[in-house]
Amino acid sequence: MAVMFGDRLAAEVDRKRSQLVVGLDPIPELLPVELGGDIARFCCGIVDAVAPHAVAVKPQLAYFEALGPSGMTAFGEVCAYARRAGLLVIADGKRGDIGSTARAYATAYLEGDAPLADALTVNPWLGRESIEPYLAAARRRGAGIFCIVKTSNAGGDVQDVTLSDGRPMWQHVASLVADWGEDLVGESGISAVGAVVGATHPRAVGEARRLMPQSPLLLPGVGSQGADPADLAQAFTSGPASALVNAARSVNYAFRESGSDYRSAAGAEAARLKEVLWTVSGW
Amino acid sequence: MAVMFGDRLAAEVDRKRSQLVVGLDPIPELLPVELGGDIARFCCGIVDAVAPHAVAVKPQLAYFEALGPSGMTAFGEVCAYARRAGLLVIADGKRGDIGSTARAYATAYLEGDAPLADALTVNPWLGRESIEPYLAAARRRGAGIFCIVKTSNAGGDVQDVTLSDGRPMWQHVASLVADWGEDLVGESGISAVGAVVGATHPRAVGEARRLMPQSPLLLPGVGSQGADPADLAQAFTSGPASALVNAARSVNYAFRESGSDYRSAAGAEAARLKEVLWTVSGW
Repeated sequence: MAVMFGDRLAAEVDRKRSQLVVGLDPIPELLPVELGGDIARFCCGIVDAVAPHAVAVKPQLAYFEALGPSGMTAFGEVCAYARRAGLLVIADGKRGDIGSTARAYATAYLEGDAPLADALTVNPWLGRESIEPYLAAARRRGAGIFCIVKTSNAGGDVQDVTLSDGRPMWQHVASLVADWGEDLVGESGISAVGAVVGATHPRAVGEARRLMPQSPLLLPGVGSQGADPADLAQAFTSGPASALVNAARSVNYAFRESGSDYRSAAGAEAARLKEVLWTVSGW
Repeated sequence: MAVMFGDRLAAEVDRKRSQLVVGLDPIPELLPVELGGDIARFCCGIVDAVAPHAVAVKPQLAYFEALGPSGMTAFGEVCAYARRAGLLVIADGKRGDIGSTARAYATAYLEGDAPLADALTVNPWLGRESIEPYLAAARRRGAGIFCIVKTSNAGGDVQDVTLSDGRPMWQHVASLVADWGEDLVGESGISAVGAVVGATHPRAVGEARRLMPQSPLLLPGVGSQGADPADLAQAFTSGPASALVNAARSVNYAFRESGSDYRSAAGAEAARLKEVLWTVSGW
């Protein structure tokens, strides 16, 4: 039996005293010119710089897919490099499909001979059946998932619609996510089934914590999207590893503000965010 | 200004007198042994066999992704081969993300110098903002999308939840899909914004037609999943190109039943389904 994802996460948070996840959003036009558009080299440089400060990296699949097969080769290289550097890898693919197709995604990212990632972001719109293959991967391989519950954008036309019991739709999905993860809680009290909740909605973060007390929350929206880390204290009430905060652009492209080497700039910003978050978390 | 996707679709349906879409689900273990697991060769063989009978192919990205970078190379080859064979390509990725990430997906599949596909399946859970980049691709490049509205599986725990106005959630999403596609209706009366509705729910298909009168419906679930084409007549009331019916396994793997060459078996099954559907459609 593999170590549960929640326990792996909790151990890493303890070890590094960090709840920071660094998103990897490699956009060729934004890279330092001397890299000649080599996104794998750029991402590995970011990995080296943030490894002491972050608990995980979250490569965004879309940017790798946009470059075709060579992008997917880079994706594999970056994932392997990050794992060797002692970082958890959360593949941000927001996948969602049914039956054998969902099993193919679980195999591609979380199982197989050399799984690319430790966890995958998934879309809950297709219901529990679509999540089962990932739950099986969580049991067998200690993998994790983060279900997209409430996004940092203005997705309210779908996620905020009011149900017959008066709740917004996303809260119903949050309850489902709590159910899906109930059997997959580690000794740390943290489940393998987490949720993505936009840090740009602090009240929703608090409500999400209440509805999914054992799910690790992955909170994007700090940095370029403008959420204030100080508003996120309530996310951490289930323990130091009960929430992770993602920053991507503000770390990846810190050099564009500071003018220094991209690795130094990313490392400095990651170190700063790590300290801010640990203080906010109150642990 | 590019020709609108709805008009391209309507022209192809007229030309071939077909509403059949053949899904490409290449699973190495199920391929004819003589192909040695070469999924690109298998899919191109299916393309050759079904090109006279189908209006489009729908390669399922998960099966290609599961094979890593070489799978993505195969995906590109198969898409290009199918387009040269006069088939529309609907990439089945069920992608859904926000902001610049959604733009990266639109670029990867529908824009760029040599777009892989004519249309992409997308997940509506992240709301209109997440759909905008695809709408832009529809305007600029004549691309199409198919939003996942009601799946052929038992996804009712999310899609069927009751709203405050008494409707099931998926019908709310169907209304949004109709709105999203309103400005993108071609001269044929068919929009670039379609919807995936499981053929396994015939009553939902009729309701979907009513809620999205101009959206092309993509109906999976015929064949291996057991839906009866005869139940789908009501999907076609907005015109011969107003619905497409997808069959994947029952065409791809017809040779496993018949014992004949995989291409002959796929061609025969596609020809049969095409005739059944044209009759059912009443056009």
